[in-house]
Amino acid sequence: MSFATPSITLTHEGALAMLTAAVAKATQMGQPQCIVIVDASGVTMAELRMTGAKFLSLKSARAKAETAASIRAPSNAIPEPVQPLIGLATQGHVTGLPGGLPIMLDGICVGGIGVGSGSGDQDIEVAKAALDAIGAT
Amino acid sequence: MSFATPSITLTHEGALAMLTAAVAKATQMGQPQCIVIVDASGVTMAELRMTGAKFLSLKSARAKAETAASIRAPSNAIPEPVQPLIGLATQGHVTGLPGGLPIMLDGICVGGIGVGSGSGDQDIEVAKAALDAIGAT
Amino acid sequence: MSFATPSITLTHEGALAMLTAAVAKATQMGQPQCIVIVDASGVTMAELRMTGAKFLSLKSARAKAETAASIRAPSNAIPEPVQPLIGLATQGHVTGLPGGLPIMLDGICVGGIGVGSGSGDQDIEVAKAALDAIGAT
Amino acid sequence: MSFATPSITLTHEGALAMLTAAVAKATQMGQPQCIVIVDASGVTMAELRMTGAKFLSLKSARAKAETAASIRAPSNAIPEPVQPLIGLATQGHVTGLPGGLPIMLDGICVGGIGVGSGSGDQDIEVAKAALDAIGAT
Repeated sequence: MSFATPSITLTHEGALAMLTAAVAKATQMGQPQCIVIVDASGVTMAELRMTGAKFLSLKSARAKAETAASIRAPSNAIPEPVQPLIGLATQGHVTGLPGGLPIMLDGICVGGIGVGSGSGDQDIEVAKAALDAIGAT
Repeated sequence: MSFATPSITLTHEGALAMLTAAVAKATQMGQPQCIVIVDASGVTMAELRMTGAKFLSLKSARAKAETAASIRAPSNAIPEPVQPLIGLATQGHVTGLPGGLPIMLDGICVGGIGVGSGSGDQDIEVAKAALDAIGAT
Repeated sequence: MSFATPSITLTHEGALAMLTAAVAKATQMGQPQCIVIVDASGVTMAELRMTGAKFLSLKSARAKAETAASIRAPSNAIPEPVQPLIGLATQGHVTGLPGGLPIMLDGICVGGIGVGSGSGDQDIEVAKAALDAIGAT
Repeated sequence: MSFATPSITLTHEGALAMLTAAVAKATQMGQPQCIVIVDASGVTMAELRMTGAKFLSLKSARAKAETAASIRAPSNAIPEPVQPLIGLATQGHVTGLPGGLPIMLDGICVGGIGVGSGSGDQDIEVAKAALDAIGAT
């Protein structure tokens, strides 16, 4: 039995690099986005609302980021039939909306990124660009 | 007319024994879990998030425990058609998700246990192991 | 009588430039910080928690940013005797803690920045560095 | 510039060992306690309300645990003059009440423990017994 286990954590340099890459991709797509990055416990590391993005998408982007970090998988991996019930039971923190991806470094989940304001596909594309920027998968 | 009525309450020794049994069962299953135990008023008695469990499952496990204690029946006894409306009207405190069981001692409901992070069947199995540990049904 | 009035709003490019300058100053000072930037309505534009910063300072940094944007003055301009009462009446949104500055461009308040995790003086210095980066006063 | 940094995290075995030691010490003192253990981001790992403890002390114990984890120091290290203002600005999450201690393993802060329901000295003594149980300082 062990009281502690080794891990790694995302730095703010990593979070800023992700934010910058996300903005670049969203700008290139012509779709302003809200971007939220959380750590492995779901606590905010970085956040940006782009000019022209829907301000309430900050809330859904946060739920997407939290969900992906919690389940260590894309937010839309939540099975469709249970999405409303799990959403309710977690006060909206768990969402099945697309646009949330876990941040995996060396096989360890160091957090999650959530993107919202575009279509689901656009949100995912921006999140992926952010992961690419730091060599995460 | 009587101004008071005899009752029994779960002790923290009982709650700890439940927690320990739940962890043992979850470990044996290879599925880390979040476990929440509440009293007959729905107030937290004990809580544990196992290493590797989804952190947002603490929230759904709490709702399951509260629901089971409130209705004195398994959380998934909430009739399916009304689950969304009751969930909304209670800000997510009532959930129909499986994994919440009432803690019945001598026919009296002394609280509820909620388990989350596994499949519904796994959650229920872990909750049952916790009840067994204190001779509850 | 006029139904609308011209205004200016901070762009996300501005918010990102502020964040970057704040991080550079905090790094130079050797004091990791939490930085929150809100618009003229107090809604989040950007946010960053630096590695090693106190995670709860995200909350106080937010209150500082909101306060500065709301009163269009430094957060510690709130008169000391009324700070507790105003804090209570606004559920903590108004704070007299130092480290919140309004973002004034061309004499118009376009938002606020709040910095927390260092001493009051350090927080203010980092906030000022962020304003300088976009020519705000 | 590095995107990730090595760390360690407390396991649930560690959290349970802390809980058990805290209960033993509180029992020996004859003062039932509420005990909350959070991770390095302030998210709940374990929680117990002992029979006879004040139920609202669960809330203050949580604030103590969060504060200690956030500042990586005892909760009562918050300077007395700023305690009310910081408490307000963080909606009560930061508290200067005694009974919160950081959990330091190998020089790394892996979380915080908060104890409440006794006197300040009793709370601290129980928290220390929990740290001792896992060789934390």
